[in-house]
Amino acid sequence: MKVNGKTTRSIWREPDGVSVGVIDQALLPYQFATLRLATLEDVARVIRSMQVRGAPLIGAVAAYGLCLALRADASDENLERGYATLLATRPTAINLKWALDEVMAAVRNIARGQRVAAAYARADKICDEDVAINRAIGQNGLRLIEDIARRKKSGVPVNVLTHCNAGWLATVDLGTATAPIYLAHDAGIKVHVYVDETRPRNQGALTAWELGQHGVPHTFIADNTGGHLMQHGLVDIAIVGTDRVTAQGDVCNKIGTYLKALAAKDNGVPFYVALPSPTIDFAVVDGLAEIPIEQRGAEEIATVTGRSANGGIATVRVAPEGSSVANYAFDVTPARLVSGLITERGVIAATREALTKAFPERATAAK
Amino acid sequence: MKVNGKTTRSIWREPDGVSVGVIDQALLPYQFATLRLATLEDVARVIRSMQVRGAPLIGAVAAYGLCLALRADASDENLERGYATLLATRPTAINLKWALDEVMAAVRNIARGQRVAAAYARADKICDEDVAINRAIGQNGLRLIEDIARRKKSGVPVNVLTHCNAGWLATVDLGTATAPIYLAHDAGIKVHVYVDETRPRNQGALTAWELGQHGVPHTFIADNTGGHLMQHGLVDIAIVGTDRVTAQGDVCNKIGTYLKALAAKDNGVPFYVALPSPTIDFAVVDGLAEIPIEQRGAEEIATVTGRSANGGIATVRVAPEGSSVANYAFDVTPARLVSGLITERGVIAATREALTKAFPERATAAK
Repeated sequence: MKVNGKTTRSIWREPDGVSVGVIDQALLPYQFATLRLATLEDVARVIRSMQVRGAPLIGAVAAYGLCLALRADASDENLERGYATLLATRPTAINLKWALDEVMAAVRNIARGQRVAAAYARADKICDEDVAINRAIGQNGLRLIEDIARRKKSGVPVNVLTHCNAGWLATVDLGTATAPIYLAHDAGIKVHVYVDETRPRNQGALTAWELGQHGVPHTFIADNTGGHLMQHGLVDIAIVGTDRVTAQGDVCNKIGTYLKALAAKDNGVPFYVALPSPTIDFAVVDGLAEIPIEQRGAEEIATVTGRSANGGIATVRVAPEGSSVANYAFDVTPARLVSGLITERGVIAATREALTKAFPERATAAK
Repeated sequence: MKVNGKTTRSIWREPDGVSVGVIDQALLPYQFATLRLATLEDVARVIRSMQVRGAPLIGAVAAYGLCLALRADASDENLERGYATLLATRPTAINLKWALDEVMAAVRNIARGQRVAAAYARADKICDEDVAINRAIGQNGLRLIEDIARRKKSGVPVNVLTHCNAGWLATVDLGTATAPIYLAHDAGIKVHVYVDETRPRNQGALTAWELGQHGVPHTFIADNTGGHLMQHGLVDIAIVGTDRVTAQGDVCNKIGTYLKALAAKDNGVPFYVALPSPTIDFAVVDGLAEIPIEQRGAEEIATVTGRSANGGIATVRVAPEGSSVANYAFDVTPARLVSGLITERGVIAATREALTKAFPERATAAK
């Protein structure tokens, strides 16, 4: 998508053909700066520091991390060491392990002299596949937006509400929840997006930044606001991303998603979840009972980080000293509240039957 | 309630018997400091600056403002001037006008030499009446908490969720939503309170501060969290305050209240609203259709204020430059989501019938 008017992915090969460029997301939305990663250590560091974040992007950058490790030393020993180093950066990230395994499979049984080229080829393909999946999600979701636009007066925008950042910054390009929005905007359909701030980490600011850079009209709101907007007909469709969808269609996503799904249901607003199919976990059925919800550090709740008056990035404390805090990172939206799942194979119902029918090979493998 | 171990109201007469003490709420929850108000201008300034806030407290401090004006000059002209000055500080605050009218009625038709004493007597009574109403609310709500405590294992706390600050800081003492909590705690019932941060103005930090000062166990959470907690049985009862209740029991309160009410309904958690009866507006029936929702300044959404690393109070910007923001201050929770209204005359259903029966004199006056 566009940054400062220039088409940009969240990750790219630098002109030297070997080092890798990424956006320093720790500085967003306050400053746009890029980082050049030339070694395995560079890659491991930016994953650990969360200068790159978002499951698909982490997978892509880790894949290039193995390429850079092989450039330094293409031995089996170094390959294993690089794999272990990268896997340890974010041990629970499912895409990270998947991408590393893909590169390993591509290089393990070939001659050392061919490994670097094979690794880069696989890493490039991981990136392109991510974009292709997101484009398919976007095209499938675009039809939902087109349907709403057709029912509206000409010139009246389709109002979309989203939560957190399931945008292109978290993927290689286009994003998941944002893909239908970007495709609609680029097709000349008037869209306007309400962007939840998404406390405690305020990833909504990233969504607002990317929408703004691409020229998509949007409004940044407190997480408390979406229900009121829906009560007053100000939201036509909600589209969010997800970290995991269960076999019966329950949706695990950023904390607060469930509250917006309830408000959507109460006001007849369609509530859609956009996802690439690897996000479906056919081994889990009842999201509420089976998915453990990560509790993160207290500081995320007790403090807020933003740009200070002097232009730097500063952190202020909002909780009183001595108050306990709790920081549940995700919640589960039961399938009954989900109007549909926007996948690369179409928009499907959030039911076991529809998921099994759309992804039979995945459903069978999980048995 | 207690501050630093000492029983404190939010407003008091200073030892000189004429000037008025208040807490500088602009410094909370980071610093406890008091202000001594000796003139009408002192009072008008602290209302305008929001160093005192909360509808009942604003009414009380304004009443003393008229006392101080009369001390300087007990003429009709000065009385009218003082009334106009104070009324203009927060023109939409209903308690402010009510309290000023009460003092005016007490002094208008008596000799100038008696006006100061009569005004102080009425202002003192306004304070005591507020505390008496809140105590009655507390006692009525206490029974709800006692009922839950009886069904729990001994030693397991009753978990209450609240939103915004309907605490003693917003009133003269005890608060409204907090009154049942304080009475339960003081009666030896184990209570624990989940306190919503309440973006954009983070009044939840005030609630957390007052609970902490009084020794009530509590946990500060992001506004996104309450639904997840209710799904997992971690909330036994939600109690919130309100700015206005309609004749049919719709509840206008801080933005985000509606989302918590939806989650409570979805999970079978009782959702109660605590209010003094003057908050009932029998002239309004359908809250969603009839109550205009105030939109406040963009800066509240775009920025967050807290304590900086050096101990001062600082503001950081969280929204990207160039993003639009919307700041709806309140939302309306339909009566169907409200388990009951905790008033000074008992816990009543959120229906026109119950409201009319409990407050027949108010319902008739509105016709």
